[in-house]
Parts: sequence; structure tokens; C-alpha cells
Amino acid sequence: MNREFWSYIAGFLDADGSIYVQLKNNPTYKYKYQVAPSIVFYQKKKENPGLDIIHQKLKLGYIRLRKDGMQELVINDRKSINLLLFRTLPYLILKQSQAQLMIKILKQIEVVSSADDFLSLAKTIDLFRELNYSKRRTVDSQAVYHSLINLKLLTP
Amino acid sequence: MNREFWSYIAGFLDADGSIYVQLKNNPTYKYKYQVAPSIVFYQKKKENPGLDIIHQKLKLGYIRLRKDGMQELVINDRKSINLLLFRTLPYLILKQSQAQLMIKILKQIEVVSSADDFLSLAKTIDLFRELNYSKRRTVDSQAVYHSLINLKLLTP
Repeated sequence: MNREFWSYIAGFLDADGSIYVQLKNNPTYKYKYQVAPSIVFYQKKKENPGLDIIHQKLKLGYIRLRKDGMQELVINDRKSINLLLFRTLPYLILKQSQAQLMIKILKQIEVVSSADDFLSLAKTIDLFRELNYSKRRTVDSQAVYHSLINLKLLTP
Repeated sequence: MNREFWSYIAGFLDADGSIYVQLKNNPTYKYKYQVAPSIVFYQKKKENPGLDIIHQKLKLGYIRLRKDGMQELVINDRKSINLLLFRTLPYLILKQSQAQLMIKILKQIEVVSSADDFLSLAKTIDLFRELNYSKRRTVDSQAVYHSLINLKLLTP
């Protein structure tokens, strides 16, 4: 893969992609929340079979067809996300901040060794809300905080 | 402008841009139709002030805010379209056919010297309908044909 390909992907991501991290309720996890990072590319399926072609070239993630007819190329394993961001970071223009924040979070995930660390991670994830103008984020660090208190993993 | 920038723009155009040509009724034109080529980039204004940044770097076209809140970067002079396509063509993946067709049409416009030539140009423009899956193209080469007959510029 050459520099032109990765700058092409940077343009595609800036135009029509998302970089975000979700906190999901999950009782099987130590702190009862799963940290789910994603990079997603979107296209209207009927108008454009293009994401399949991009997927073949990119060799990362998987294709998902939504019920509303949108096709998504979803990359949600940390290794692939790190690779994609490492390669596109020099060329991203509009989503530099989201990319930097994602890289920071992926590093922070690696070093979580206490409830305090986990809460601190959740607070970093909160920062995506501003960058992505997301309105429907339901789980934030406040929810994590109260949950950790309830679990007696943290003292108020 | 370097190759990384143009491949970035190719990715942006593939993800979220349009390449198309409209035939517009215009009585001031010799054949009563104006050929209007466009390359347009789209972003939601409220979520992303990004097109202004792209516009500053690209130095082509102009920004237009639509009533529905979408922001467009519109490039519709032939010289700028030719320049943009010439630079991005090596890197376009999904919109290669549209780009090639646009280049063909821009060349064909230059050599129109008769009603026959104009009708032939209109037929080439028809080909965009398939490529862009456009449903609401009202003026096509059939309309141009009948108009040229009515104007006695063409014999049936």
C-alpha cells in the first residue's frame, strides 16, 4: 500500500466516515462496560457498490448492510484501527482531532488496571461527544462513575 | 499541490461527491439548451465546517449553503473541472467512469459546430443517467432532438 492509497482513504474517511468509541453495558466485563471503538465508512448500497471495492483494497474490517439500505464498512478491532489511523493520520484534514483522540483512547485501554483508570478512560471517551456532535450518546463517564460506586469498586 | 493532496481529493470525491452534466432550457443559447457540467462535494454544515477548509486548499469553485442545511462545494467552470479531473483521475476508484465521461463531454463541447454535433453531445450526456442512477433527469437527447426539429435546425 502506497502513500497515494492512504491519502485516498484519508479523503474518503474525511468525507463520509466516522471515528467514534461507544461505552456499552455488558455484565460479563470487569467494570460492566465494554469499550467499543469503531471506524465506519458509509455508502448508499443501491447507488454505489463501491464499499466492496474499497474493502477489497483496504483488507480491513467487514461489510454490513443496514436495514435502511445504507452499506457500511466497519473496522472495530483495535489492531486494524491503529493501522488505519497510523497510515492516514498524515493526510487527514477534517478528522485529525477524532483520529488523535482515538489513538489516545486505544493507548489508554492498554493500561487500565483499576476502577480509577477505567473512569479516567470513560472521561476521555466523553470528549468524542463534542467532536462528533453526537446527541444520542446514552452511556457516558457519569453513568460509569455511578456504576463503579454501586459495585463498590470506587469510593465517592 | 502534491500527489497526496490529489489522491485525498479523489477519495473525498469518491465518497461524497458528484460528477454530472445537466442540459438546461435556455432560449438565449444557439441550440436553446445550455450544457452545465458540475463537480460537487457535500457535507452537513452543522456537523462539519469542513468544506470551507477543503475549498481553501483546493482553490477551485465556490461554497453554497442549501436550504436543507447541506453545504456544497460547487465547481462548474470547465477549466477548473478539467484541472480537477486531470489531477484526480489516476487515483479515483469508484468514479472513474463518470470522470472519463465528463472529460469526453468537455472535449466534445469544444468541437460543436452544427445541430448534429449538438445532438450527438446530448446523447453522450444521456450516458450519465446510467452511471449516476439519476431518476429525475427531465431534459435528455430526445427533448433536444425534438427541439432542434421544431427549430428547423435538424431534419427528421
